[in-house]
Amino acid sequence: MPDSEFAGRFLGVLGGMGPMASAVFMVRLTALTDAASDQHHVPAMLWSDPRIPDRPAGHAGTGADPFPWMLNGVRHIERAGAGVIAIPCNTAHLWYDKLAASTSLPVLHIVRSVVADLRRHGIMGGRIGLLGTVPTLNSGLYQHELEAQGYQCVLLPQSDLLRYCAEAIRLVKVNQVDAAQEPAVHSVQLLRQQGVDAVVLGCTELPLAVPAQIRPSMGVAVIDSIDALALAALDWYRDA
Amino acid sequence: MPDSEFAGRFLGVLGGMGPMASAVFMVRLTALTDAASDQHHVPAMLWSDPRIPDRPAGHAGTGADPFPWMLNGVRHIERAGAGVIAIPCNTAHLWYDKLAASTSLPVLHIVRSVVADLRRHGIMGGRIGLLGTVPTLNSGLYQHELEAQGYQCVLLPQSDLLRYCAEAIRLVKVNQVDAAQEPAVHSVQLLRQQGVDAVVLGCTELPLAVPAQIRPSMGVAVIDSIDALALAALDWYRDA
Repeated sequence: MPDSEFAGRFLGVLGGMGPMASAVFMVRLTALTDAASDQHHVPAMLWSDPRIPDRPAGHAGTGADPFPWMLNGVRHIERAGAGVIAIPCNTAHLWYDKLAASTSLPVLHIVRSVVADLRRHGIMGGRIGLLGTVPTLNSGLYQHELEAQGYQCVLLPQSDLLRYCAEAIRLVKVNQVDAAQEPAVHSVQLLRQQGVDAVVLGCTELPLAVPAQIRPSMGVAVIDSIDALALAALDWYRDA
Repeated sequence: MPDSEFAGRFLGVLGGMGPMASAVFMVRLTALTDAASDQHHVPAMLWSDPRIPDRPAGHAGTGADPFPWMLNGVRHIERAGAGVIAIPCNTAHLWYDKLAASTSLPVLHIVRSVVADLRRHGIMGGRIGLLGTVPTLNSGLYQHELEAQGYQCVLLPQSDLLRYCAEAIRLVKVNQVDAAQEPAVHSVQLLRQQGVDAVVLGCTELPLAVPAQIRPSMGVAVIDSIDALALAALDWYRDA
């Protein structure tokens, strides 16, 4: 049987950052697909490597460099024959330019996916509250892209960010998703009180701590970076 | 940087049968790991290929043969360097012997994982109610293994199996997980009324239709074949 029988475009997912976020990305990719049977879903390969060193520590220079490990994952995805790479980790996008330059495959950008999702929600401008890890927010990763698209960015004071948002991320990473809900929801509420038009869950652990079913009652649009990236991947697959 | 820096055992997952079941397998693998940080989780590669032809139709000879597609996935997993293969699809285990013979990698067996999980629950014998696809149950895949281990098997009449259990599986596969709950729960209750000691959710779509939080109130032990396989994979990783 010729290999070509199995040819066809498939999605490569550089995951494990953390492993729950990339597993939930696969769940959301499936749930967001309009499918009448298994065979209508998107073929994908997930490289889930939780050994990739901690991104915030690596960025701060206080821990091992995660980049060589990410590149190892990219090489696995390339060798398997994927047509595009999605990275369900916002902080990993601090290495986006370096990763994108290291491969001939297109790499979806999670922040650009979030901008597309804001527009899908009809939010074409205004004040956007940002939640995420400290290095993601301090780097300006979101601010640069959102401001270029005409949005204004609103951040929590660093003390609140550490106390509520970083704490929620930490709890998800140690499998305490239920305990993560209170600090995560409080982070969203603090931004809502500043009159923002939407809050971006700009760390892929946060959507787990703010489950979809409670979002409609939060009084502000909540943009989920996992869903945004999954929708970008589905767009890629449909356009292929 | 030498490749050996990235060496280490990782789990290969032959998935996409269906894609939601294998995505949830990745979620449960993560949630069932006792981890203090990302870096304590199990590295894994998921080959999620929903193009693999329908297993029940393939087994009945009314649809394309899924085996060459499964083998294509096994080859991808081998080439990536995985140390073991897990297949989060019960019906796919009708091809287990053929798949296991086609690779030098060990392949975890979902039914043996379920037997281990029954014992983990303290159920060392007795009457076990079985739910699954028609070909899985008609093939005797579960009955053979369970009877060899001293359990008795209880099945629903074929008409009830089709009306409730097969319908729940179909609904999960078309992303109607909420609608799948009523027929799935009814299947469990019909078996409970026959006085079984446990009910095995012997199709990886069924645990999605009988969510973990409702199981304690069902009046009978519910054994989840996704969780059982994830626990077997964790045992493999710890023993490695």
